[in-house]
Amino acid sequence: MGTLQTQLSVQELARRIGAELRGGGAGDISGVAPLETAGPSQIAFYANPRYRKELQGTRAGAVIVSDEDAAQVPASAARLVATQPYVAFAKASALFHDGLVIEPGIQAGALIDETAEVHPTAAISPGAYVGPTARIGARTTLHAGARVLDGARIGEDCILWPGAVVREHCIVGNRVVLQPNAVIGSDGFGFAFDLEGDGGGPMHRKVPQAGIVRIEDDVEVGACSCIDRATLGETRVGRGTKIDNLVQIGHNVQVGPLCLIVAQVGISGSTQVGQGVVLAGQVGVVGHLRIGDGARAGAQAGVAHDIGEGETVTGYPAMPHREWLRMSAALPRVPELLKQFRKLQQRVEQLEREKGK
Amino acid sequence: MGTLQTQLSVQELARRIGAELRGGGAGDISGVAPLETAGPSQIAFYANPRYRKELQGTRAGAVIVSDEDAAQVPASAARLVATQPYVAFAKASALFHDGLVIEPGIQAGALIDETAEVHPTAAISPGAYVGPTARIGARTTLHAGARVLDGARIGEDCILWPGAVVREHCIVGNRVVLQPNAVIGSDGFGFAFDLEGDGGGPMHRKVPQAGIVRIEDDVEVGACSCIDRATLGETRVGRGTKIDNLVQIGHNVQVGPLCLIVAQVGISGSTQVGQGVVLAGQVGVVGHLRIGDGARAGAQAGVAHDIGEGETVTGYPAMPHREWLRMSAALPRVPELLKQFRKLQQRVEQLEREKGK
Amino acid sequence: MGTLQTQLSVQELARRIGAELRGGGAGDISGVAPLETAGPSQIAFYANPRYRKELQGTRAGAVIVSDEDAAQVPASAARLVATQPYVAFAKASALFHDGLVIEPGIQAGALIDETAEVHPTAAISPGAYVGPTARIGARTTLHAGARVLDGARIGEDCILWPGAVVREHCIVGNRVVLQPNAVIGSDGFGFAFDLEGDGGGPMHRKVPQAGIVRIEDDVEVGACSCIDRATLGETRVGRGTKIDNLVQIGHNVQVGPLCLIVAQVGISGSTQVGQGVVLAGQVGVVGHLRIGDGARAGAQAGVAHDIGEGETVTGYPAMPHREWLRMSAALPRVPELLKQFRKLQQRVEQLEREKGK
Repeated sequence: MGTLQTQLSVQELARRIGAELRGGGAGDISGVAPLETAGPSQIAFYANPRYRKELQGTRAGAVIVSDEDAAQVPASAARLVATQPYVAFAKASALFHDGLVIEPGIQAGALIDETAEVHPTAAISPGAYVGPTARIGARTTLHAGARVLDGARIGEDCILWPGAVVREHCIVGNRVVLQPNAVIGSDGFGFAFDLEGDGGGPMHRKVPQAGIVRIEDDVEVGACSCIDRATLGETRVGRGTKIDNLVQIGHNVQVGPLCLIVAQVGISGSTQVGQGVVLAGQVGVVGHLRIGDGARAGAQAGVAHDIGEGETVTGYPAMPHREWLRMSAALPRVPELLKQFRKLQQRVEQLEREKGK
Repeated sequence: MGTLQTQLSVQELARRIGAELRGGGAGDISGVAPLETAGPSQIAFYANPRYRKELQGTRAGAVIVSDEDAAQVPASAARLVATQPYVAFAKASALFHDGLVIEPGIQAGALIDETAEVHPTAAISPGAYVGPTARIGARTTLHAGARVLDGARIGEDCILWPGAVVREHCIVGNRVVLQPNAVIGSDGFGFAFDLEGDGGGPMHRKVPQAGIVRIEDDVEVGACSCIDRATLGETRVGRGTKIDNLVQIGHNVQVGPLCLIVAQVGISGSTQVGQGVVLAGQVGVVGHLRIGDGARAGAQAGVAHDIGEGETVTGYPAMPHREWLRMSAALPRVPELLKQFRKLQQRVEQLEREKGK
Repeated sequence: MGTLQTQLSVQELARRIGAELRGGGAGDISGVAPLETAGPSQIAFYANPRYRKELQGTRAGAVIVSDEDAAQVPASAARLVATQPYVAFAKASALFHDGLVIEPGIQAGALIDETAEVHPTAAISPGAYVGPTARIGARTTLHAGARVLDGARIGEDCILWPGAVVREHCIVGNRVVLQPNAVIGSDGFGFAFDLEGDGGGPMHRKVPQAGIVRIEDDVEVGACSCIDRATLGETRVGRGTKIDNLVQIGHNVQVGPLCLIVAQVGISGSTQVGQGVVLAGQVGVVGHLRIGDGARAGAQAGVAHDIGEGETVTGYPAMPHREWLRMSAALPRVPELLKQFRKLQQRVEQLEREKGK
């Protein structure tokens, strides 16, 4: 990540990030910083009440906040009030930072097959590999050790970090980021248990994984995340979906656009995930399900059934979030309930005995 | 994955996959496809009732099915009835697809130590590495950036995809597939907490991980899966076992033959897994256990105790599957039970009061 | 892992590992081995009662044990009695094994930018990459395909195994080990949902991940583990902390010294983990929490709230371990409780009816 030598008046900054400037006196801004370390020439960001103390003590020149939180900003700081404060912060930070920029062209030590097509504006680092008939689009960067196998296509303005792998014939759109060691197009886990085998007794016979993975525009895939190629046809990740680290996406899964798939989630084969779905960390989803648009699953949920549009589920097995909240509040009371139940049984027995007299 | 220019009569196809041909009229078959996209010159496959609608609407020339499902295939399609339909499908697909084939020999840009032994029929891509005294068997492929360190041995007909690592002295059998970025022989997680340390206070002292990993024949290891070398001796994965992506196998684990270990499973150190065991996605198994032959653990199960031969467990902590089913159906009723229990207590109190009169 | 041709008298061995020698007759020791395979010239180690049978049958020349277990060692073996037996074993094993040693210097096929600074005693294997202005300290080893990007700094005596990635500007201390395909400095998962977007409708706008990762001295990071760079400032892993395979550490997480983080754990962004914390396998920790010094979380726990100093939690949602033990023993009894509750209700109804007579 490079730091740009940018200096902006707070008025100009407000204009560029679409925020309303309140309070004043702030001079030029030359960077962004956390509340606790920001100085008078830096802007900070506040949204989570966990950091109220840091807000109150901040020496930042300006703070990006919501209208609701604006009154809490100390008088020393200008307020940059935004309807989408986190978006405003993202825009502000992007004014001061850009990514690691590599010179366009094929550097010495890059391994490019003679039948590959690499756009002249693409940047290919030493040790990166582009296989036979693969294509790399304009302004795309392959960092050291990124690998694109035979016939795969990478669009424009993509970044493939070291160790990212795109296997043969897979298709990656524009503005896609593959974090280090991400894997696109590994074989799906498809084996048919064959009682007869090929003469050596029973075996798991490999089902050819003859399809591909298609990654649409503006997708990001996290470090060491794996997206398996389809058995037939395509595994697909929709436009603008963001995938965190160490996520597993099985063969023939269809992920819609604008989803957020948090670290260590696993989605089994052939499941269809709608638009704008959020799967929190370590969620597991079994195969062949339909997850409706806008559905959400809480961290570590085990999703064994379809989820309807806009539903939120939690727990294992996953259930509607409210039901889960009630249940998980009640369960720690079960040991005491068992004791009290025995006592109540005894009292009823006593009543029954006495009645008989 | 390459597509072969194969064309077969449906009779010949039936013969080759060991299926019985019913219904007719189908011409030559030139490929396999999903039910919903297959055309008259393609075969499709049906087994999961979730896709009954797709079966009824299919335009496939032939469909591979079980005897039981055969009647549901539309009249336009020939039926290829098999006792093991998924096996028949695997065989059929293999007739039309083969993997990415690399020319035998060491390509320019491959990094081969002069003391390594690479069989002349092995194919070594640019950027692949074979270290000192390592050995690569006949017809084995190392794709770009696969790495085999000092003294490791890879058998015949193996495929190491980009970024797969086999660390020093590990042993890999024949027909083994390592998906991209799989790691064989990383150090086990062995640290002894030393209150005294080496003069700098308490420390976690590293226990040398002096053993190896042995991968037997016909094993597949998924993308970004990690198999740790033994502290002493061997970590072992048995013949024909298939491991999905992002799986962790700790040091000194012994996995028997013909197991299926689904994505994101973790098996802690020294656990012994029998033959034909199935661990579903995200299962965790603690160390030093014995998992009996044919045992199964449901998705996300937390296995803290031995599992007997043929048993199926689920849940956290894992318990017999039937018990877990009963329990997990009952637990959502606990909040209501607590309410009703209070009411019943009051009714008993009332009876007790009245009795006293 | 190399095996050293060392031979030591059992007396000398006892002295070097700080153990008390009891029983005798043992000759020279030339290696360590598991109880079940060790011979008279080898030492073994015993601590786990699961392996009592192996202890009783061992032919090892000497066994490292605690004072408490010493009496169980067969008479044929010398006893090496240690107050910290596992530490003594670690020391003993280190006398007989060292790691894979690479010749110092930059080997042919290594890819080193001309502005990088590589210490002359560092060992850089073929296919390893050191980017512009990056620095590699004394006696550090980069195995084939390890990659250090622009401006990153690696300290002294480190080992970066194949495929390990340190992204731009990250800082790695001394004696740090990065197992194969570990990723340091991937982008944090930071996206601001922007209803307006840039003209193409709503989007997840990327928040620049402008910070770094700082890895302190004596840290080990497991295979395919991912530590995300900070949004601003630093993600930090403290001195002597050991991280297992496939672990996810989010942006701006602060991990204290001497922690143990077991395989497949995920820690979400901005969480602060104290000193000496132990997180067992597959634990998930949500963001912005504080985990106190010496806290522990059991396998698969879902940690959704702060954990106090020295507390142990388990379960999902995580609760004090004792409470969880009581609860998880009680829950399987709920189905029976529901049945008995209905019966008790009926008996109370019966009493109420009779009372009315």
